[in-house]
Amino acid sequence: MNNLKRVKINDTFWGRYEKLITDSVIPYQENALLDRIPDAEKSHAVENFRQAAQVLKSGSCNGEFYGMVFQDSDVAKWLEAASYSLLLKPDPALEKRMDELIDLIGQAQREDGYLNTYFTVKEPGREWTNLMEAHELYCAGHMIEAAVAYYECTGKRSLLDIMCKMADHIYNHFIIEKAPGYPGHPEIELALVRLYEVTHDERYFELAKHFIDVRGVDPEYFDKECKTKPFKVWGMDPFDKEYAQNNMPLRDLTQATGHAVRAVYLYSGMADVAAKTRDSALLSACQALWKNITNRQMYITGGIGATNQGEAFTTDYNLPNDTVYAETCASIGLIFFASRMLHLEKKGEYADVMEQALYNTVLAGMQLDGQRFFYVNPLEVIPGISGEIKTHKHDLPERPKWFGCACCPPNVARLLGSLAEYAWEETSDTIYSHLFIGGSYACPDKGISVHTETGYPYSDKVHYTFEAESSRKLTFAIRIPSWSKDSVDSIEVSSATSAKEISYKDGYLYISGYFDSNDSITLTLDMQVSYVYANLQVASDSGLVAVKRGPLVYCVEGVDNDNDVLSLRINTDKAPVIKDYQADDLYGICRIQVPGYRLSFEEDCLYSTSRPTATECTICAIPYYAWGNRGLNQMRVWLPEMH
Amino acid sequence: MNNLKRVKINDTFWGRYEKLITDSVIPYQENALLDRIPDAEKSHAVENFRQAAQVLKSGSCNGEFYGMVFQDSDVAKWLEAASYSLLLKPDPALEKRMDELIDLIGQAQREDGYLNTYFTVKEPGREWTNLMEAHELYCAGHMIEAAVAYYECTGKRSLLDIMCKMADHIYNHFIIEKAPGYPGHPEIELALVRLYEVTHDERYFELAKHFIDVRGVDPEYFDKECKTKPFKVWGMDPFDKEYAQNNMPLRDLTQATGHAVRAVYLYSGMADVAAKTRDSALLSACQALWKNITNRQMYITGGIGATNQGEAFTTDYNLPNDTVYAETCASIGLIFFASRMLHLEKKGEYADVMEQALYNTVLAGMQLDGQRFFYVNPLEVIPGISGEIKTHKHDLPERPKWFGCACCPPNVARLLGSLAEYAWEETSDTIYSHLFIGGSYACPDKGISVHTETGYPYSDKVHYTFEAESSRKLTFAIRIPSWSKDSVDSIEVSSATSAKEISYKDGYLYISGYFDSNDSITLTLDMQVSYVYANLQVASDSGLVAVKRGPLVYCVEGVDNDNDVLSLRINTDKAPVIKDYQADDLYGICRIQVPGYRLSFEEDCLYSTSRPTATECTICAIPYYAWGNRGLNQMRVWLPEMH
Repeated sequence: MNNLKRVKINDTFWGRYEKLITDSVIPYQENALLDRIPDAEKSHAVENFRQAAQVLKSGSCNGEFYGMVFQDSDVAKWLEAASYSLLLKPDPALEKRMDELIDLIGQAQREDGYLNTYFTVKEPGREWTNLMEAHELYCAGHMIEAAVAYYECTGKRSLLDIMCKMADHIYNHFIIEKAPGYPGHPEIELALVRLYEVTHDERYFELAKHFIDVRGVDPEYFDKECKTKPFKVWGMDPFDKEYAQNNMPLRDLTQATGHAVRAVYLYSGMADVAAKTRDSALLSACQALWKNITNRQMYITGGIGATNQGEAFTTDYNLPNDTVYAETCASIGLIFFASRMLHLEKKGEYADVMEQALYNTVLAGMQLDGQRFFYVNPLEVIPGISGEIKTHKHDLPERPKWFGCACCPPNVARLLGSLAEYAWEETSDTIYSHLFIGGSYACPDKGISVHTETGYPYSDKVHYTFEAESSRKLTFAIRIPSWSKDSVDSIEVSSATSAKEISYKDGYLYISGYFDSNDSITLTLDMQVSYVYANLQVASDSGLVAVKRGPLVYCVEGVDNDNDVLSLRINTDKAPVIKDYQADDLYGICRIQVPGYRLSFEEDCLYSTSRPTATECTICAIPYYAWGNRGLNQMRVWLPEMH
Repeated sequence: MNNLKRVKINDTFWGRYEKLITDSVIPYQENALLDRIPDAEKSHAVENFRQAAQVLKSGSCNGEFYGMVFQDSDVAKWLEAASYSLLLKPDPALEKRMDELIDLIGQAQREDGYLNTYFTVKEPGREWTNLMEAHELYCAGHMIEAAVAYYECTGKRSLLDIMCKMADHIYNHFIIEKAPGYPGHPEIELALVRLYEVTHDERYFELAKHFIDVRGVDPEYFDKECKTKPFKVWGMDPFDKEYAQNNMPLRDLTQATGHAVRAVYLYSGMADVAAKTRDSALLSACQALWKNITNRQMYITGGIGATNQGEAFTTDYNLPNDTVYAETCASIGLIFFASRMLHLEKKGEYADVMEQALYNTVLAGMQLDGQRFFYVNPLEVIPGISGEIKTHKHDLPERPKWFGCACCPPNVARLLGSLAEYAWEETSDTIYSHLFIGGSYACPDKGISVHTETGYPYSDKVHYTFEAESSRKLTFAIRIPSWSKDSVDSIEVSSATSAKEISYKDGYLYISGYFDSNDSITLTLDMQVSYVYANLQVASDSGLVAVKRGPLVYCVEGVDNDNDVLSLRINTDKAPVIKDYQADDLYGICRIQVPGYRLSFEEDCLYSTSRPTATECTICAIPYYAWGNRGLNQMRVWLPEMH
């Protein structure tokens, strides 16, 4: 994790998001955590730390703990996101406020290193008794990630020291004192690996590996814990072991199950451990889980978790478009998992899915102005049904302001604030361009910088130029998206000084040779619109077709289509038309005109033996990430095909 | 309710069901109620009466109440069904056992008339304190219906006297003592009207009307009750007034909401009261509710109640095929409602829906051998998903043996045992043939009998012949199903003695004149197969088409289609082929060969830009009611259309 300081984004598409994060999202979320947003649900997350500090100082507090058992993690995720924001746009006043907040967090930490406001304020003495539900290790994980980020971005050890002390406490409890158990909500595993990477303290890696190794070896652990635990949070079912991802030792897993965010956080930690240990059984499990998710349980938008009942995976090919969960955080977790798999194996499929989740579900999770967020990202919305009836209560048709359970907004902020980590990778001899983002990437060890110019995801050109201290032998690897395989032949390499060797493997084009200043490479992507068909086993998509261009899944909204998308049909025999990029349309998009039909059902009844009459029409599609920004209206990603 | 003794069914299709009811369903359910079925869920319903009798006799009992709060109603529904069975097939041994059971019920009745084993055994002293949940009036209603049926079928007053005493008790409580409230689960209303019809005691009608009049006038009643009630059953939400159908005075209702069975039982009671009082506001509400259900919230199979969450209606046009509830009992209740609306207004639409619910959802509720039952009647089943994952747990892919909550099986039995009530209607000058069932219908007041011969629902002819004591002037009215409008012109009237006048109105053909013996009428129905399209606002059916012939909705099962129905598409440009009736195929059906395509998706992934290859094929469809009789397999009613 060391790209952050070496990348400068200079990109029409992502530059706007970067500015949104620094100028809008981070300040908004800070105010939310401080309960300064009128009419929004109360957060109380910072106040919880204040109360915990009071308890530790004086034995009691003047308020109470408020919020979810994992409320601390909102502060942690914001601190992590704000750390990245400081790099994107230095802000001494913000940094000072962060230092004060970190100081408060320090005051809320016990002498023995333990840090968790829920337990300190509300359930003192009951620490580590309810691993299944109480999220202590989860909150610790997020605060560790924040600590690592703050240290990496500012060089300051304040939060890192606090969290090393907490990690030591955890190490002591689970390793030295051999306490049984593993977290109900994984997250600590990947966080400990990050902590290990900056501190080089092997104990932290040992602890991460420990949680991976013991999970599911005793699948009864949560049952046993339940029998003795002194309190419950929600009364989660300890017998649903698939849900809790402890149904078997993790190295035996082949099927992604249970809470989707927990799953992909866990699999990310597994991949992290596999990367260091080269444990082939663990790697195989990661590969099998990856395959199961992406080939059986993932929406076209990169969304995962088909049901709101437990925010969970269901089973292969069950992908309802209207009652879907597809939590924003789950797609963020999928990006974490993808990025780690890509670190393990350079295969384009990992970066493809990373991109798919990023440009569709993750971006859709945030309103275009950065002010409102979706938890749940449906692929079909019908006002009057979505967000209204019991089975669709969670599928909101418009983004709400702030959630009492506010996991997604700060998660979006920390991901978008650290995009550089996902776009580039450097090994001893190769520079990988995983995502196409304009700007510069400095590789001081190689004495070279790469400048990228692109109008991606709306234009088809990605132009790389190199700036070298001196001619350097290296390999520059460019991902060739699976939807643009022919781009392998489009590559133009220009060099005044030396020829390059070009080869292709597993979704990457490898350009090797001596690189000099002013060398350049131009990739031309296939940005034709595609009609996409789902596997026939996906019942919800039977007879339906989706529209995709480049990494962007498109959708159809009522506001562009006479307020009725349900009567539209796509004529896939005709080619769609890409409209010019309009900078002032939904903050800059290309619309697509899809040839189709508008059906008309003549009777005011439910069923008819008369085939609905069809009138040719042009359907207007916009990128899925931009949906729901123009008021309440119908939206669909998948439309029936009709010839 | 006086057709039962005047109709003799002599019909290939219904004769088999009649025999199933008398020879299999009634004995099976008797054994179930007596806990004599190995491996089935315990009922304990009869034993509860034994315990209650003990309590009343000696102040205590040697066992306990077991089962749902409404367990008594299982006994009541069985007694009602068994009463009809006695008419269909006299059985002195059964009648003797029923007399003994009725004697036991009498012993379980308190001196003051109160009868309910749950309260007598488990919650004595808490009668009438939890109308919202405790189903006292519901159980009373079903036992009143049983009493009326037993009296009508055997002439014996034993159970009728018991239930008059209970009705008097209820009258005393709610009318004389002016206790507030109305039943959580409607049923008593329609039962009291039946009791009034046999006893002519106006108080029973007054009581029925009272429950209709007061419901929803104080929508807060259940909230208030909750604040004072001494116990709870499930902890139902008193604030969900739409769910409880008490959100407004009933005369103002226009939208069917809440628990589907409760809704249609309530609306049936409303129609009953409107029929006697000619209360136009009540009639208007019934018409509006009817229209809302049948034009906005009903499956093509006549199923109602789109969600398992509360077994309830959701909202207009929300009709998911896979997560549907469509409880068998709800369609039975819809038939009750339809039958009563038909009594109010002679409009074919009521009988059409009655038939649609009967021949599809109700029959599908029972295995063809009468041994197993569905509560829930899905329109799409995928093994591995249906009945398995949380969102589809209720949508079982195969019928289970017996339910602890056994409302549907005896409800099917009592409906099928009393079909004559729905098939025929007689007014002062007209005989109505609502349903096409072979056999005879005697109208002694008119000195005429009608004999019907038909192979319906598989053949297109319905042949009526008349047997008259002497030439009689009357009108014979035949429903012309909406799917066979041209049959108006097909009618053949044959008489050696006199010509008839023929006119058509609102779905009925009226044939008037003097009827003599050997006069005959032949109706020829349009039994061509139809492709049916759903209203475009039904998102779940977008791009899909269903196959229907006569009253029968067809479905496609894996067992007939290479174990994969998801890759099938219907080519509606080509005509389907009806196969000959096969008496030994699923107890007698016509299969339909539907022209279509089998698609093939080449890759082992979720999404592809390659259009699936299509191979022409013939799809085999069977009647929906016969699905799920040949083991676990896929099933679909709606299939994508493809040209």
